[in-house]
Amino acid sequence: MEKNKKGYIGIAQINPTTGDIEHNSLKIKNFIEQAQKMNLDLVVFPELCIVGHPLLDITDRYPFILEESMKWLEELAKITKSTTAVVGFAEPAGGAKYHSSVAIMANGKIQKIIRKISPKQTPLFNDIKYFEPAQTKEENIIEINEIKYSICIGEDINTNLPQKTDIIINCNALSSQSDNDFSQIATKYNTPIITVNQVGTTDNITFEGSSKVFDKNGKLIARAKSFEEQLLVVNPLQEIGEIYPETHNTNIHHESFSLDYEFDMERTYKTIIQGIKDYFNKNGLKRAVLGLSGGLDSTVCAVLLTDALGAENVYGVSMPSKITSNESKSDAEQLANNLDINYTQTPIIDMFETTNNCFQKLFTTVEKNWKDRYQKSFTPDNIQARSRAMILWGISNEFPSTIPIATSDKSEAYMGYATINGDMSGGFAPIADITKTKLFALARWLNKNRPTKNAIPESIILKRPGAELAIDPKTGKPLIAEDALMPYEFLDEAIWRIENKKENYKDMINSKFLYETTHQVSKEQKKEWLDKFYKRMAGALYKKSIMPPYVIVDTTSPCTIPISSKINYKGHSTEEIQNIIKTNLN
Amino acid sequence: MEKNKKGYIGIAQINPTTGDIEHNSLKIKNFIEQAQKMNLDLVVFPELCIVGHPLLDITDRYPFILEESMKWLEELAKITKSTTAVVGFAEPAGGAKYHSSVAIMANGKIQKIIRKISPKQTPLFNDIKYFEPAQTKEENIIEINEIKYSICIGEDINTNLPQKTDIIINCNALSSQSDNDFSQIATKYNTPIITVNQVGTTDNITFEGSSKVFDKNGKLIARAKSFEEQLLVVNPLQEIGEIYPETHNTNIHHESFSLDYEFDMERTYKTIIQGIKDYFNKNGLKRAVLGLSGGLDSTVCAVLLTDALGAENVYGVSMPSKITSNESKSDAEQLANNLDINYTQTPIIDMFETTNNCFQKLFTTVEKNWKDRYQKSFTPDNIQARSRAMILWGISNEFPSTIPIATSDKSEAYMGYATINGDMSGGFAPIADITKTKLFALARWLNKNRPTKNAIPESIILKRPGAELAIDPKTGKPLIAEDALMPYEFLDEAIWRIENKKENYKDMINSKFLYETTHQVSKEQKKEWLDKFYKRMAGALYKKSIMPPYVIVDTTSPCTIPISSKINYKGHSTEEIQNIIKTNLN
Repeated sequence: MEKNKKGYIGIAQINPTTGDIEHNSLKIKNFIEQAQKMNLDLVVFPELCIVGHPLLDITDRYPFILEESMKWLEELAKITKSTTAVVGFAEPAGGAKYHSSVAIMANGKIQKIIRKISPKQTPLFNDIKYFEPAQTKEENIIEINEIKYSICIGEDINTNLPQKTDIIINCNALSSQSDNDFSQIATKYNTPIITVNQVGTTDNITFEGSSKVFDKNGKLIARAKSFEEQLLVVNPLQEIGEIYPETHNTNIHHESFSLDYEFDMERTYKTIIQGIKDYFNKNGLKRAVLGLSGGLDSTVCAVLLTDALGAENVYGVSMPSKITSNESKSDAEQLANNLDINYTQTPIIDMFETTNNCFQKLFTTVEKNWKDRYQKSFTPDNIQARSRAMILWGISNEFPSTIPIATSDKSEAYMGYATINGDMSGGFAPIADITKTKLFALARWLNKNRPTKNAIPESIILKRPGAELAIDPKTGKPLIAEDALMPYEFLDEAIWRIENKKENYKDMINSKFLYETTHQVSKEQKKEWLDKFYKRMAGALYKKSIMPPYVIVDTTSPCTIPISSKINYKGHSTEEIQNIIKTNLN
Repeated sequence: MEKNKKGYIGIAQINPTTGDIEHNSLKIKNFIEQAQKMNLDLVVFPELCIVGHPLLDITDRYPFILEESMKWLEELAKITKSTTAVVGFAEPAGGAKYHSSVAIMANGKIQKIIRKISPKQTPLFNDIKYFEPAQTKEENIIEINEIKYSICIGEDINTNLPQKTDIIINCNALSSQSDNDFSQIATKYNTPIITVNQVGTTDNITFEGSSKVFDKNGKLIARAKSFEEQLLVVNPLQEIGEIYPETHNTNIHHESFSLDYEFDMERTYKTIIQGIKDYFNKNGLKRAVLGLSGGLDSTVCAVLLTDALGAENVYGVSMPSKITSNESKSDAEQLANNLDINYTQTPIIDMFETTNNCFQKLFTTVEKNWKDRYQKSFTPDNIQARSRAMILWGISNEFPSTIPIATSDKSEAYMGYATINGDMSGGFAPIADITKTKLFALARWLNKNRPTKNAIPESIILKRPGAELAIDPKTGKPLIAEDALMPYEFLDEAIWRIENKKENYKDMINSKFLYETTHQVSKEQKKEWLDKFYKRMAGALYKKSIMPPYVIVDTTSPCTIPISSKINYKGHSTEEIQNIIKTNLN
């Protein structure tokens, strides 16, 4: 056997499928063999990569997969030769519990096992539920070709500080990594750090990849690709390694709300594209069908699906009602032509009429018992949205590996401005974590940055969003969403302030919104919008609970509030509280 | 002021609404004043009762409610007199973090605050995310009327063991409590224990109440009502206190699957009734509308809704298609009459025809691009189910405070044997955690135990379940669910084994199912059923993710598996693994 190349290390940034041990093991085998061919000293894999990540309750329901993955690991060890492989796995620790461990494998054997001490500290993972910390601080040093390596897993790099070695190896699986932290640790120990990350998406959780190497002074000397599998070869002691461009520009943090989304567009785009691809691939899906309304939401969804699945696997259906304008119809068709996706038009006028007729008789009957029927209702609007969803689900039932797409965006999901079993229904919701103002920016960015320029007709970007489900009696034209809700710029800032600044009602009243710097907004108007904002947000909790799977784009988004809860967002002064307590009689 | 009654303690078993500090505070005030009127020494409340439980991410999104609840607590303290109140609250600990604390309040002041050390250890709560443990073991002893009390919160009764006092008070908020644990602790310390529990339901989490008192020998001497608010007065040192019947018979645990559900019927019934009531009350809802098919699922739902909401607030709609038998129609009507609920019949034949016509043209168009259209599909079945849901959502849109009911049961939810935007759609799903065999038992129990006997027509219980959406070509009659799936008795045992025994495929193959003791089942047949069971269970993950809110009845049910996951439930032998690794070429 040829002598190994001293200090050369392969970073195996892989995209495992959660629970699919066979698939993941063969992927690991592939990377080990590549590394062996190059005679590397070492090839390192992400944390838990043989079972994938996150596991959630998988080991609770299927504890046997822990034993199963051990069997695969032992067989993988047998194929190792002079290149040492460091592979993250879930080591059985009784029932559903597991250690997050790495196996050091070489020359046909597992040479050593290192176990993690610190649990994951991020709200996106509940693995902590089944994580069993190592009982004792493990001896975590290995020596290869006269170079000493400390091996540590995930968060242990912060707590389980290694003795002085030549190189620190950190097997990780992080949604996003802060360069600063790793750079500081390298500096602190005056030792180079290699941190290998998972890539790929599991449902809503994105792993960006971008595995990194820092030299002993904390300087970045290598970075793997973002959003791609890769075997990146580095030699930290000789400062050898390529720095691939990082998608995420972590240098820009807005201290206040801004409409400047440009800095985050590429990451947003790639996050959603990887999210769609992995959701489809990992679930055996191939094709998407969506309604094309000529509006912004369905338009951006169509572009993203085209890029992720290929134009031949996307079907756009225009489903006009009586209210639908000719402009909307032609915009939808133009978009489909530009994207070269499959396209057809199916009016819902008959379905609407039949359902509406059935409803009028039925409601009159029900009204005999329940006498407080609404004077005005959204029922006709909803019939349209639900007839459309019925058509899309019909196509998905009739053609293999096909799912319909829910086109709700984040602003509307927050406000519950979407129809249950209508536009918010589908097998996947690509833009459910993109606010409307960001969506406009994304549409412009797509028109500029895709190989086919200006696929999105300018008229779609210019028109004011509205569901085209009802006529506004004031204007005689289809209702504009901002008139029913509030200006999107204002709405999106309220969302931003809640998620990023944890502001309450009073904070929002007492400081100027960006929208207020360019528009005259009366105090009463602002209060009305904020009242509506909080009321609708609370009312939307149920709808959010049945939202189809979507990719988390903003790490500030995930939030579960009990539906059966009630928050007085305005609070009370001490005097008010005293008054309420005094006047309440038992 | 009259001298207090020495050693008399009020157990304030209250039902708070999560986040509704005003509502909860006034409830607490009411109980404090009642206790004061009786001149009790002490009135004790559940853990965190001023903010309710579980909080999930509420304090992350609305951190100000922690400060707000402090203000209310301070004002509540002012109304206290000689009766000491022990009130659980969430004490601000920086940002979204809080201590689970209790305030000892008397004579118009907060006299002392005690903080919890141990986090909740149950998978049903994620409060641990924001729980800040007390830094130091607190002095937790108070003395009233010459009696010494140790006050401890929730799990601290296990870890933060008190010095010897006269009585241990445990402020708790537990989904279910094991008598044995508390009894043993009382015995261990040779000290009486009072454990006060929350009652009520928050979305899917049930608090049963049943607050308990044990004497120093571990003997139960008092128990509050199950599923009801109550101020129960006890005197542990004088062994004074009433033992109300407990709904949950914890003495019976089946070691293997059994169809004997009788022992658990009352708890099951009361859990769902409280779940419906609290979901409706806490969310400002009043009325339910549901489809009555003449089948078991919708029938049991109708009975439960009637008992929870009152017959006048339930609307049953029979929505026959061409396939619906006369028997189904008359069974549905008979049931509605027996329950005295509102009832009407609306055929879906027109909606079906119109939709089906639209679909036939559309599918032919789509087929030009996507040539692999299914030869056989469930599309016509789904049109029926979705038309029905459209009608129910229509009624809910048209009448205030009304939601449609999803009638899926647990066996079918596990198998994904339900239509998206069809029978699994609704604002609440009363029986989503009841398996089909248990549902039959519940139907019989309801007929025997409700004031109005035999409300459920015998013919509904006797017929074999089927969705009546399609004709079985083999029989010329509507398809029976067990023929499409497997016998429910077998299916429910497979579910039971996974949840309770964590069995894998091989375990199930190698041991006899109850069904096999009474029926001849070939090895091939059993394999076919199990293969179908695992395949459908994996395929149903997406559907489960969009299931409407429901009450957890089996504590073994909650389980989140990533949709984008793949488990080889059969596993591989070492030889097979070696073979796969060997033959896989890169």
